[in-house]
Amino acid sequence: MRGEFSFIERFLSAFPRARVPLGPGDDCAVLAPSRRPLCVTTDAVVEEVHFTRAHFSPEDIGHKALAVNLSDLAAMGATPRWFLCALALPRDFPMRELVRMARGMAALAREHRVALVGGNFTSARELSLTLTAAGELQRPALTRHGGRPGHLLYVSGTLGEARLGLDLLRQGHRRGTAVQRQRRPQPRVALGRLASRFASAAMDLSDGLAQDLGHLCEASGVGAEVELSHLPLSAAVRQALGFDGGLRGGEDYELLLSVPPARVAAFERACARAGERVTAIGVLTRDRRRVLRDPQGRLIPPPPGFDHFRVRPPVD
Amino acid sequence: MRGEFSFIERFLSAFPRARVPLGPGDDCAVLAPSRRPLCVTTDAVVEEVHFTRAHFSPEDIGHKALAVNLSDLAAMGATPRWFLCALALPRDFPMRELVRMARGMAALAREHRVALVGGNFTSARELSLTLTAAGELQRPALTRHGGRPGHLLYVSGTLGEARLGLDLLRQGHRRGTAVQRQRRPQPRVALGRLASRFASAAMDLSDGLAQDLGHLCEASGVGAEVELSHLPLSAAVRQALGFDGGLRGGEDYELLLSVPPARVAAFERACARAGERVTAIGVLTRDRRRVLRDPQGRLIPPPPGFDHFRVRPPVD
Repeated sequence: MRGEFSFIERFLSAFPRARVPLGPGDDCAVLAPSRRPLCVTTDAVVEEVHFTRAHFSPEDIGHKALAVNLSDLAAMGATPRWFLCALALPRDFPMRELVRMARGMAALAREHRVALVGGNFTSARELSLTLTAAGELQRPALTRHGGRPGHLLYVSGTLGEARLGLDLLRQGHRRGTAVQRQRRPQPRVALGRLASRFASAAMDLSDGLAQDLGHLCEASGVGAEVELSHLPLSAAVRQALGFDGGLRGGEDYELLLSVPPARVAAFERACARAGERVTAIGVLTRDRRRVLRDPQGRLIPPPPGFDHFRVRPPVD
Repeated sequence: MRGEFSFIERFLSAFPRARVPLGPGDDCAVLAPSRRPLCVTTDAVVEEVHFTRAHFSPEDIGHKALAVNLSDLAAMGATPRWFLCALALPRDFPMRELVRMARGMAALAREHRVALVGGNFTSARELSLTLTAAGELQRPALTRHGGRPGHLLYVSGTLGEARLGLDLLRQGHRRGTAVQRQRRPQPRVALGRLASRFASAAMDLSDGLAQDLGHLCEASGVGAEVELSHLPLSAAVRQALGFDGGLRGGEDYELLLSVPPARVAAFERACARAGERVTAIGVLTRDRRRVLRDPQGRLIPPPPGFDHFRVRPPVD
């Protein structure tokens, strides 16, 4: 049997050396005082809940574990700085898959210049990765509670792709945009930073628009009216899932933003200049109900989202 | 079925409101800039590896999950400030046990004035808690690499109690010092801070003295000579486990410290004044071997420690 320490060394070897006072290898990492406020978040990906080894390569798993954490930083407008990685591995987990997982994680870490400063290994029955990430704020944090009636609602990118990707994986497909969106979600870090100059509220879309919009509305004490026909859906999602894909498809890791009317024009110009796709999908309302307007102009109540303990579908 | 969000609310309700710019409930917590360097660590406790529900109450589990993280901060001489708690729960996990777990964690958090600032819930097949904790340094961090030949080796408290406690739990015992040490390890936070004024190196004893001393020696580039007869063993440990309990018993969460000879007298006086029990057990050596001296004065090589992937015994 291999020792815990060879696991740690092999995992760490995929990452560049962290430029911090003390990196991995001691009881704690030591970080220099931050001049700016810190955003911190922790998020886990668990086998059979967030991925299956049949459908995700080790690189995909490593990527996704970091991506979901960076997405939380993006939603606050923070710049990722460092992260810790706690791994729970089945006893028979192959070393070569561990190294591939580290490589997938390290590629995304390099892209966002975020340093692995520490971590933990433990054995467990199922594979899971619990990461904690921290980012620095250049501006006041984007929160869920800053939305006000009349502010416009935006989403980035397209919705429902990750859900469609999951369906396609289950059907045996291994390629294509939607599959890639499920396996390799891209945290919208640059957009989050940009949005912190304009937006009144933000969050990332992990559980689907219907449910996540509910959280933003509740935190802000507002309602919302969403135009179904404005939802940014690809032709593939529209055909396979219809509006439901945009409303209930989870794991897109796009950003949901509210922008005050006076900032809308400048926000859209800044997004266009930066090549960030955003789409106005509705407006926050004083009336606390959340309603959808269908293409015929009829108001309908939103469907429930999903959460892990209620209606979360197993990945496979 | 209950929703993820009622779980979160019930869990959080056991903790005092964190005094930070933004606490739990958004995509990230927001923390004010720290004036001093930060120590960060992440550590997990997993059902059937670090505890069993048969032998640990929910309060014990919550306590232990935080204690093992605070112990890492203690080993650096840091003052705990905040932590994040990622929970993986089986789908049928009872809400009342979750609340009791939170209470056990919150009691230890209050004792050390450390604030829960965020977390995550996910479903999983087995129960696990992965915490990330951060502390501030008033002085340069205690590390594993500062030991030098001639520095004296100290351990806090007594050794082998947690291992004996585990044996007793398996035999059906439910009370007593050793059982309590297994269920409710006490992180040596005050001692760590005190030691940062005197010690050259430190680490916490999670895997047993034999193995952990090896890490300190390797990091410091030194060897060690340990007097078996000096190991602080209770009469119960001595009788049940002999020296092996002190050398290989894991999970004591005491501190292992090296102190330069010139600081030894002041260190021992400061410990006595603070009511911190420490015992000199040996000395670091230029020769990189690690040797034990038995009560007859004979040198013997140390036994291997354990690690989770090699010889870690299952909890039950």
